[in-house]
Amino acid sequence: MNKRTKTLVALAVIAASASALAQQGPKPENLIKWRQSAFQVVAWNSGRIKASLDGQYNKDEVLRAANTIAAVANSGLGSLFAPGTEQGKGWHDTSAKPEAFKDTKHFGELGASFAKEANELASLAAGGDAAAIKTQYGKLTRTCKACHDDFKAKD
Amino acid sequence: MNKRTKTLVALAVIAASASALAQQGPKPENLIKWRQSAFQVVAWNSGRIKASLDGQYNKDEVLRAANTIAAVANSGLGSLFAPGTEQGKGWHDTSAKPEAFKDTKHFGELGASFAKEANELASLAAGGDAAAIKTQYGKLTRTCKACHDDFKAKD
Repeated sequence: MNKRTKTLVALAVIAASASALAQQGPKPENLIKWRQSAFQVVAWNSGRIKASLDGQYNKDEVLRAANTIAAVANSGLGSLFAPGTEQGKGWHDTSAKPEAFKDTKHFGELGASFAKEANELASLAAGGDAAAIKTQYGKLTRTCKACHDDFKAKD
Repeated sequence: MNKRTKTLVALAVIAASASALAQQGPKPENLIKWRQSAFQVVAWNSGRIKASLDGQYNKDEVLRAANTIAAVANSGLGSLFAPGTEQGKGWHDTSAKPEAFKDTKHFGELGASFAKEANELASLAAGGDAAAIKTQYGKLTRTCKACHDDFKAKD
C-alpha cells in the first residue's frame, strides 16, 4: 500500500471502531450494576411479602411488592447478562457463575420459571387469599433458589 | 428502688429494647441499598426507552421497560426513606438531601407525580403510539429532574 491508501485504511478502521462503539450499548459495568440492582429490588420486595405473611397480612403491601417482582421478572433480565459481562464489577464483583454464559438455554428456562411464578403470585396478590399467596410465594422462592444453586456463586 | 426492683426494671428495659429491635424491620443500610437499587432499575429502564425512541422503536422493549418503571414507582419507595436513613451507606453514601426527611409532604407529592406519569407511560406503551410515548416520556423524566433538583445531592 502507498501512503495515501494506508491513511485511508487507517481512517476506515477508526470510523468502523467508532461506529461499533456507538452501537454496542451500555458498558459492561453498568449492565452488571443494573442486574445486581434488579435482584436487590426483588430481595427487598420478597422480604416485604414474607414479613406480611409471617406477621399481619397487609393486602396492599403484598400486592405492590408482588407487582414489582413480576415487573422485574418480565423486564428482560437476560439482556443484563450480555456477552462481555462474564466478569467485572458493578456495585461489587459479579456473583454470576461462568455457567450462566455457557448454558444459556437452562439459564433462560430458569428465568422463565421465575417470571411464570412471579406473574401467578401477582395475580393471587390482587385477590388477597393469604393462604394461596403463601403457597405461591413458596413456589416463587424455589425458582430463586434453583437459579442461585446453578448460576450464582456463594457469597 | 431496692435491688430486686432495680433488676426487674433493668430486665424490662432489655426486653422492651429487644422487642423494639425485632419490630423495627430492615436495617438502615439495607433500606439505603434498596432505594439506590430501585433508582438504578429506573435508570436502566429509562435508558432502554430513550434508546428505542431515539433509534429503532421496539414496542415490546418499551413496554417491558415502562411496566418496570411503573411498578417501582408504585412499589412504596417512601418506605425506603424511613427515619434513621438520613445518612449512611448502602452501595455508596446516600445521595438524599436532608430536605427529603424534613419536607416529607413535598417529597411525597413529587413521588406521586412520578408514579402518575409512569403509570400513564405504561398505559401508552401498551398501545404503541411512539410519538405519544415520546411526549409522555418527556413528562416522566421531568418528574425525575424535579425531585433530583430538590432532594438529591449532586454526584
